[in-house]
Amino acid sequence: MTLLSTALPVVEPLDQSLRDRLQHLIDTRTKPPGSLGRLETLARQIGMIQRTTRPSVTRPALIIFAGDHGIAHEGVSPYPQAVTAQMVANFLAGGAAVNAFSGVADLALEVVNAGVATPLDTSPNLVDIPVARGTRNFAHEPAMTRDEALEAMRAGAARVRHHAALGTNVIGFGEMGIANTSSAACLMSRLCGVSIDECVGRGTGLDNAGLAKKRNVLAAALERHPVSGDPLDVLATFGGFEIAMMAGAFLAAAEAHMVILVDGFIATAALVVADAIAPDVREYCVFAHASNEAGHRRMLDHFGARPLLALDMRLGEGTGAALAVPLLRAAVAFLNEMASFESAGVSDRDA
Amino acid sequence: MTLLSTALPVVEPLDQSLRDRLQHLIDTRTKPPGSLGRLETLARQIGMIQRTTRPSVTRPALIIFAGDHGIAHEGVSPYPQAVTAQMVANFLAGGAAVNAFSGVADLALEVVNAGVATPLDTSPNLVDIPVARGTRNFAHEPAMTRDEALEAMRAGAARVRHHAALGTNVIGFGEMGIANTSSAACLMSRLCGVSIDECVGRGTGLDNAGLAKKRNVLAAALERHPVSGDPLDVLATFGGFEIAMMAGAFLAAAEAHMVILVDGFIATAALVVADAIAPDVREYCVFAHASNEAGHRRMLDHFGARPLLALDMRLGEGTGAALAVPLLRAAVAFLNEMASFESAGVSDRDA
Repeated sequence: MTLLSTALPVVEPLDQSLRDRLQHLIDTRTKPPGSLGRLETLARQIGMIQRTTRPSVTRPALIIFAGDHGIAHEGVSPYPQAVTAQMVANFLAGGAAVNAFSGVADLALEVVNAGVATPLDTSPNLVDIPVARGTRNFAHEPAMTRDEALEAMRAGAARVRHHAALGTNVIGFGEMGIANTSSAACLMSRLCGVSIDECVGRGTGLDNAGLAKKRNVLAAALERHPVSGDPLDVLATFGGFEIAMMAGAFLAAAEAHMVILVDGFIATAALVVADAIAPDVREYCVFAHASNEAGHRRMLDHFGARPLLALDMRLGEGTGAALAVPLLRAAVAFLNEMASFESAGVSDRDA
Repeated sequence: MTLLSTALPVVEPLDQSLRDRLQHLIDTRTKPPGSLGRLETLARQIGMIQRTTRPSVTRPALIIFAGDHGIAHEGVSPYPQAVTAQMVANFLAGGAAVNAFSGVADLALEVVNAGVATPLDTSPNLVDIPVARGTRNFAHEPAMTRDEALEAMRAGAARVRHHAALGTNVIGFGEMGIANTSSAACLMSRLCGVSIDECVGRGTGLDNAGLAKKRNVLAAALERHPVSGDPLDVLATFGGFEIAMMAGAFLAAAEAHMVILVDGFIATAALVVADAIAPDVREYCVFAHASNEAGHRRMLDHFGARPLLALDMRLGEGTGAALAVPLLRAAVAFLNEMASFESAGVSDRDA
């Protein structure tokens, strides 16, 4: 754990000293107290993360990490592994859902090859830093070594620092990786102490037979690997390169006092890993969307989280994170722009 | 009913002929079928409303109708009636929550004096078309005459036509009016056939004693006025000028094949009125936000509606409608901009 704790970003707990000042500002805006509901909580959290009473959404960014999984060879997804590389090309060409949503929300979008199995065409817009060509099959052996897991986490952290240097103070993470719901389900089962059946869902669209097979494959894989209390071991055993990079990215974003948008099932599993290493990371997180993937709700309970949106999506890519950005803009806008009862000459209820 | 049916906008049912073509386009985008959840339903609805497979969000607008209520003199709100006029001034000065949210969503915002009791300062940005200086107190007499109700509905419709001429194809409506939750609760009780206790909530923040008093006042008012099967009679008896204008605006927006964003408790009550006159109006509606005001959920059930957002807000002003606009943009963006499996060279699950 010495290597781990020295090499990875350091996350400090949120400074609580601004809480009351932010709450006072929120309560004196021209509206009945509490009437903006969850946007009020959100405005306070953003202010505390950014350590200011004038928070902002500046150069919001979304990083998509893509990687392949050896477990895909067990037939746990209805899509062939080649789809990971095809979708990376689609992201780079602007044809995926997350491209459309990033355009609407005016997000800087970055695509990272964390470890795709299929060779990718070179592209000036691809951050091409694969740890390897896909993980090993954790049905038979650990998905990666501890060193590979650490390398991936550091690489993810480095991408966040790149955006921090460009002025980003709100960031979300997306992912692409055929079979990565299997990886995420095993991470969840081990790190949250939940039976695998509660963690496994239909992913991109398994039928009942496929779902039963996925459950059996993952239960057997969990049996094969000894339980470890070290989150890095768990990550190395069951994780993916995109998930490991995302875990490192979570830590670096919290270190940089960014507001972190947590997407769906895979992203939340990566947060479970990051949180097991540095539990203060969760204070920097805004949960964007409650996925329809079975198991996501249970993971949200782990964090006591209620996401901003619940639109029955189950796509990943960071789509939920992208859709939540306008709500963050609305939260900081009401805090910064609304008049107070006093300044607007509006009678408060006690008048 | 002859006058009513000839004088008000004519709403036609949605043409179903595009449904299958839209669904096919949605299903062939590069994502697992159904994985964008409610945004897929939304994209299909917007396409059907706009009668195109290339729908758009063009010059989205929000009209805030403000009016005062005689019932305020019964002490059913913790705020003095003067707050209606003060908040209109605040809207015009850009200091209210809806101003902040409209800025974030890039909405054209219009403020209409539908019938505020307190004299308003003139402003070039105020559409000053009051029916009267507040309604009469429906604890004692009908809030308005049938002619006043019709005048208000026609005026609301005219505002929508103004925006239609400017190119608006998505519109939401907000309101301001001290005590208008009382008016909305009575409209809901009569038109949805629900006991008044299920319709009454805390509004902008009544305590338990205030809530009990509001219930008693409204129950007595309902006792006083005979039941009528004519929605215009119900509107005239219990409505407000801002609610009547909004009801007319709903009808005109549907007539113009606009996508209509339905805000919270008051706006939904106005829709109940419009829907009682022309039930096809509901097909043009996107329910934006589930208000925390008691009774809103029951009214949503009346429409079989599940709003896009549930952020625990209870402010009105059109705040919920404004926050939903980026989701509409996302829905049309994925439909228009995403690649198909074929065009992107992405393997579908059957490949």
